Parts: sequence; C-alpha cells; structure tokens
Amino acid sequence: MKTRIGILGYGNLGRGVECAVRQNNDMELVAVFTRRDPASLSILTKSAAVRSVDDAANWKDKIDVMILCGGSATDLPKQTPEYVKCFNVIDSFDTHARIPEHFANVDAAAKEASHIGIISVGWDPGMFSLNRLYANALLPDGKDYTFWGKGVSQGHSDALRRIDGVKNAKQYTIPVDSALEAVRAGSNPELTTREKHTRECFVVLEEGADAAKIEQEIKNMPNYFADYDTTVHFISEEELLTNHSGIPHGGFVLRSGVTGWNSEHKHLIEYQLKLDSNPEFTASVLVAYARAAHRLAQEGQSGCKTVFDIAPAYLSAKSGEELRASML
Amino acid sequence: MKTRIGILGYGNLGRGVECAVRQNNDMELVAVFTRRDPASLSILTKSAAVRSVDDAANWKDKIDVMILCGGSATDLPKQTPEYVKCFNVIDSFDTHARIPEHFANVDAAAKEASHIGIISVGWDPGMFSLNRLYANALLPDGKDYTFWGKGVSQGHSDALRRIDGVKNAKQYTIPVDSALEAVRAGSNPELTTREKHTRECFVVLEEGADAAKIEQEIKNMPNYFADYDTTVHFISEEELLTNHSGIPHGGFVLRSGVTGWNSEHKHLIEYQLKLDSNPEFTASVLVAYARAAHRLAQEGQSGCKTVFDIAPAYLSAKSGEELRASML
Repeated sequence: MKTRIGILGYGNLGRGVECAVRQNNDMELVAVFTRRDPASLSILTKSAAVRSVDDAANWKDKIDVMILCGGSATDLPKQTPEYVKCFNVIDSFDTHARIPEHFANVDAAAKEASHIGIISVGWDPGMFSLNRLYANALLPDGKDYTFWGKGVSQGHSDALRRIDGVKNAKQYTIPVDSALEAVRAGSNPELTTREKHTRECFVVLEEGADAAKIEQEIKNMPNYFADYDTTVHFISEEELLTNHSGIPHGGFVLRSGVTGWNSEHKHLIEYQLKLDSNPEFTASVLVAYARAAHRLAQEGQSGCKTVFDIAPAYLSAKSGEELRASML
Repeated sequence: MKTRIGILGYGNLGRGVECAVRQNNDMELVAVFTRRDPASLSILTKSAAVRSVDDAANWKDKIDVMILCGGSATDLPKQTPEYVKCFNVIDSFDTHARIPEHFANVDAAAKEASHIGIISVGWDPGMFSLNRLYANALLPDGKDYTFWGKGVSQGHSDALRRIDGVKNAKQYTIPVDSALEAVRAGSNPELTTREKHTRECFVVLEEGADAAKIEQEIKNMPNYFADYDTTVHFISEEELLTNHSGIPHGGFVLRSGVTGWNSEHKHLIEYQLKLDSNPEFTASVLVAYARAAHRLAQEGQSGCKTVFDIAPAYLSAKSGEELRASML
C-alpha cells in the first residue's frame, strides 16, 4: 500500500514535490490542489487529479499526507493549522522567528483532529537545524557557524526588482572563503555579517535608467545590502536568462569544539549542501518527512512535530533490519 | 536530577567518557568499573567511585546508564547483553558485519529486563551511519561515498607491530584528494580501494632489523596493505613518540544525487569530521546517547536501539521549546 500524497500549491516547490514523489516507489501522487482554475493547470503526473483548493476537504479519505507548498509570509500561517484538521500535513515554514507561534497553532489543531503536522521541513530550517542540534549535543563546548551559498536569494532578488529602473535581476549570496577556512582551522573567529558573506547582483536595466544611481541605491539598501560587500553587474536580459535562470543554493553548517580534561583536543563537524535546485531539494526533504508523517499517524501519534522530534529511520523506505545491515 | 553515569572499562574510551560527562551539566559520573585491581586505578573525577566489574550489579539502583567501553572483538558481544539485564546501556560496537546478530542478542535481553540498550554508537558506526541514512532518504537516486582519515587506524598499527623486527609503529589512513574532488564534482566515479585511500606507516625497527625486507613485508600484507599505495617511513622511537602519539581521525560521508522530472539537477550532501582525538569524540557521542537512553527508559521504553531509532531531540539537554527557538 503506497503512501498517497496530495500537493497544495503548484509553484516551483509543488512541482519539485511532484518530481520527488516519482523517485520514491512507496509513494504516489493522488492530486494537486490549486487556487488557480484547475482547468488551466497542466501537471506532469498523468495519473493524478488537479482540483481547486476549495475541493480539498472532500479528499480527506483519499490522501494520507498533504504537502503544503505555499509561502511562509501569508499562506502557511493560515493553511497549516487549517488543513491539519483534515489531513496529516507537512510544510516548509521558514520564518525562523515565528516558528514557536506557528508550532503552537499547528499543535493545537493537529491534536484536536488526531493528525500529524510536521512543520519547517527543508534544509534551513530542516537539515541544517538537525546538524546544529546533533553537533551541539556532541560538542557542548564549542561554537556554531552557518554559511549560505553560493546560491540565489529569492528575497534579495525581489528587492532588486522593486527598484525603479530595474527590469529584472538575480542576486547570489556567496560565503567568504577566508572566513570558512578560518572556521575550519579551528580558530573560532568572531565574524561580522560583512566578513561571512558577499552579495553579487546581476541587473537588467529599463531603457534609459541611470546605472550609477541604481548601483548606489542597491549598495546602500538597509538590511538587504548595506551591511555587505556588494558587487553589481549590469547585463542584458538575454544574458540573465541564459546564465542566471537556475535556482541553485546550498551552504555549510560547522561546529568547532573541544574535548579532554583540559580542553586539549579540537574537533570540527562540517555539513555541506551543494544544490542545483533549491526548490527540488527542499521538496525531496518534504517527501521524506511525508513518509514519516504517514507512519507516525499509523502508530496513532498526533500533534505538531519538527525534524528534531522524528527518529531518522522513519524517513527511509527500508525496514529497521535492512537499515542496520546496509547503512549502520 | 542529573543522569547518573557508570563507566565499564577504563582505557582511552573510558577516560574519554569521563571527560565528556564533565562537559554536560545534566550528567554526573557515579562510578568506574574495572577488571584491574580497583586500588591500582587512579581516575580524574574525585567524586566518583572505582570498583571491580564483579561489583557492578550491586550498583543497579545508583546508575541510570552504564556506558560500556570495551572492545568489539570479544568484550561487547558478551558484555552488552549481560549488563543490559541490570542497566540501561550504551556501547560502541563497531564490527559492521556482526551488528544484526549483536542487535538481536541485546534486544532480547533488554526487553526481558525492561531496559534500553543502544548499540553501535560513535562516528562510524554512528554519525556517519546517520548521515548515510538521511542522505539516502533525501536523494533516493544517487551514490554513496565514505572516506576515512586522515587518521590513525588502530588495527593497521597493530598489524605493523606484529611484524618481526618492528619495535613500534603507527599507521595513518589518508583519503585521496583527487578521488574526493571527483565525487564533489558530481561525476559519480567508480572508485577502487586503491583509488580511495593511501596508507602511510611510521615504523621503529628493532636493533639490526632488515628495513628493506620489512618494507616489502608491509607493502605485500594481504587485506591490510596489499590493495593500497603504501608509504613506509623508518623513524626513531623518539620521533614516533614526539610526532605520532596522538589518535586523530575523521573522514567524509558524501552522497551525490539527482532530482527533477528528467534527473536534470545535481545535488551533493557532504558530512565531514576532523577529530584530534578519536576516542574522546566517540566518547562524546556515547554520552549524548546516554542522555537519550535515560529519557527513553523514563518513558517506559525498552529493547535495543541504534542511532537510527532515536529522535534527535533526545540527545540535547535543551527542551523542545528551547530547541525550536534557538536551533530550528
């Protein structure tokens, strides 16, 4: 019996989930739910239905886990507590500061409905969080570092596109090699925002826009660019589409710590992701946790969970015996 | 109420556990059990008792988790099923091929006694296993690579010391940089044993031993060295003690995989450890899982577990709220 998956929201992340489900033989995509006109939506999986979100509740006995692919700003804070009333759900809620509040809302609704809701699944929050937790538990006397990139920041690209005179733009977040090397060398550096990352912008101007003025506006933009060494390249729309249409990302989680009666031994734990497609990798994490959600629900568990609460074996299609024999 | 820890076996690993317990405020070392004469053993923790292993069963109400620090060849296959009758136990059993059998033995004894036994805890098996599992669950279409080193292999150093004419020796396992880079580049190479690691030996000869003959004997030793490019350095005992008395180790777990409807996007997940002290890091992992064992036992769970079966949050002294607010 396969785990029957629903997708709610069919943007980059939803399409990524569709692709990831196909890579897992113990799962099947049953339906995609959209806020658009379902007739206008063409999906890749011929066997799956396309329905309006308004129709979702009618599918509650046909779907084991609904994967919510909306945005964290406005969609998920409402959708996750709402849909967990009908389904076991997974989301990729990534507004770190609002996770405690989101957890509480989802937990209350999930417990009342006897469903599982797993929130903040992806790579940060998600796999990076897990690696922070493990590394802190193993090396209590140490220091954490997270670097992001090289990759496309959607938020920073959006900020560029909101500038008057900018037609299109893409922004890359790039970790500073020398900072990474200092951490790896075990020197436990104190690093400022500027020392950890640089920002590189590829900007297409509107006809007649003032490049010098726009470059200054970018470099001085508070929060987004002012605290960083920022490089701006003005390029043609053609070049942007040819060379910068991907959505790569990744990064590094490091913990440097000491052990020994006199703290005489240094250790470094490093986790690294290098991703050609940020949304497809995030989707792959969502699908692995959907497997866990289905199993937890079958065990009769309910409530809100995060990646911290779920034993690794729940993510794998293999049995405990197979895992011990092949991966331990 | 602190978790009360016992240590059984006071070699490098036992001393490492003693140091790690001191780094965790929610734990205390209660007693060390030894096969030697307890009066001959001087430990670092003034408040802890030193007792004979024969006395251990009398401590069953005074110890929450017994950490078994014996060897995998002969000690642990007997000790873990035996001591789990009296205690919640943790071991670092690392004979990969015999894990299923060890699991079955410990599981039966642990269930009968209503105790928890967590086996094969450390970094390989242990953290490396976890990373293989997570990476496989996230990228089902991909390829795994594990590299060890640069570090001291105890087994290979022992093999050198058994050669006639060798007074002392240390062997380093070294990953081949070009192989690592090929994996990181996503080319999914098929790598032979020789292509993945080299072996470097530092050998102190007995007076009058034949260096050329011993070098050939080393390089042609089946299983240990014949399948590798091996370098042999003959050095003085003084140099060995000065430059090669540490027990560093580490390594890399990588998974390279693809996502997308047409497998068009590549991803790389890499986990790396760089450890000044192999036994102290292994001990740190054991202590984190001792925390988990105590909690699981308090919940009324029993039986044999591995790192695959334990939710990450159990390893941390922080509460779920604290973890979500600070690390997610």
